Amino acid sequence: MKLARFAAEGRVLKGTVRADGRLETVEGHIYEPDAVIWLPPVVAGKAIGLALNFRDHAAELKLDLPPVPVLFNKMPNTFLGHKGKIIAPPNVEYMHYENELVVVIGRRCRRVQAERALEVVRGYTIGNDVTIRDFVMNYYRPPVKAKGWDTFGPLGPWLVTADEIPNPGNLTLRTYVNGELRQEGNTRDFIYSVPQLIEYITEFMTLEPNDMIWTGTPKGISPIHPGDKLRLEIEGIGALENEVVGESED
Amino acid sequence: MKLARFAAEGRVLKGTVRADGRLETVEGHIYEPDAVIWLPPVVAGKAIGLALNFRDHAAELKLDLPPVPVLFNKMPNTFLGHKGKIIAPPNVEYMHYENELVVVIGRRCRRVQAERALEVVRGYTIGNDVTIRDFVMNYYRPPVKAKGWDTFGPLGPWLVTADEIPNPGNLTLRTYVNGELRQEGNTRDFIYSVPQLIEYITEFMTLEPNDMIWTGTPKGISPIHPGDKLRLEIEGIGALENEVVGESED
Repeated sequence: MKLARFAAEGRVLKGTVRADGRLETVEGHIYEPDAVIWLPPVVAGKAIGLALNFRDHAAELKLDLPPVPVLFNKMPNTFLGHKGKIIAPPNVEYMHYENELVVVIGRRCRRVQAERALEVVRGYTIGNDVTIRDFVMNYYRPPVKAKGWDTFGPLGPWLVTADEIPNPGNLTLRTYVNGELRQEGNTRDFIYSVPQLIEYITEFMTLEPNDMIWTGTPKGISPIHPGDKLRLEIEGIGALENEVVGESED
Repeated sequence: MKLARFAAEGRVLKGTVRADGRLETVEGHIYEPDAVIWLPPVVAGKAIGLALNFRDHAAELKLDLPPVPVLFNKMPNTFLGHKGKIIAPPNVEYMHYENELVVVIGRRCRRVQAERALEVVRGYTIGNDVTIRDFVMNYYRPPVKAKGWDTFGPLGPWLVTADEIPNPGNLTLRTYVNGELRQEGNTRDFIYSVPQLIEYITEFMTLEPNDMIWTGTPKGISPIHPGDKLRLEIEGIGALENEVVGESED
């Protein structure tokens, strides 16, 4: 099932995405997808990101493979729905998209073993971990300014429930900028799998329903600029679309 | 005014702390401080931490002064009230307290200039940014595992409203472990002042009411262990007390 969160008629609503693309609420009201404001499909208390989880992306950044998962946090001020505008600050050179499979947690959990980790997953969505590498002086430095600007965490368009993706470890990711394919990868090339990440994180941290794990991006980052139209696809989920605008246009 | 949040009689309540130490709700109900469960004084959407904001602490860690504020995020699973128990994981060597002035934001803001930054401050509290340095392989690495364990963010005992602390840049901090003074500093030795931090952070991030900035700890960190009783004092606020327990006792 595809679960969406959106604003229409003065309210924040939730609904399923039907086969024809329309949104249907639990009351049976139907909305055209172009007539609503898409919101992030979940409101997360925490969002844990992986700084580096693809071998090819590590190579592209000329970094050694991390001996343990390198985690950071994506902050709530960054979250933005499908079709929302990413606001680029002026005078930055290396502003990059990062297409990532986002794992959404389904229940409160701690010390989950990898073998059973998929049981705590509610579903999956697509995240764009927008990053300004101008502010990454050391890749391992906490990337709060690099990844923490308002609107730098588009996600959606919807959550796909876990039953539809029995294996998150074999999904193709593709990123298009203005229709041109710029990034392609597959989650089979993760350094740490989704179950391994859940085990690692819940060793020390209680996860709550709707907490998210942003699982890292493959090779193929490139600069984006105001006017660029992004389309991030992940197999089995869909496509997240956002446009970049300059700050004066926000 | 001192504002506390606590649990009693099956509910989460808020109240002021009277001169006699008792808690008074808006309905005029009075609670003895030892008869309630103290909770963190605010529920924050975001907590931005400073990895390094005292010259003497940088020297103690043999680190250069950072050219810009080094930020990280403290996660909601870490928050713990006054008198709550800090749960120490087994087999760690360098588990440290870090006494920090916590700035609580009072209103939604972005692009705040330092000159007017104190206008957006709701008040102050004391935070203990508990850190396991065993997991800090590089001080600038995102310290998610080092600082993100459940219970590793005690704060309180209450929020002191900003009118009572017109200058957050001259407050003495003292940390006692089992009654012994271990850490002493003054916020006049901040590398970045509270107004400078607010200006720096809100350049890229919208802050919301009750968001927190944990402003960094002075020199004087030392290992703590199960059984240790911590008392963190900050001038003009009060004293935050927590005991460390082993994991099997939680």
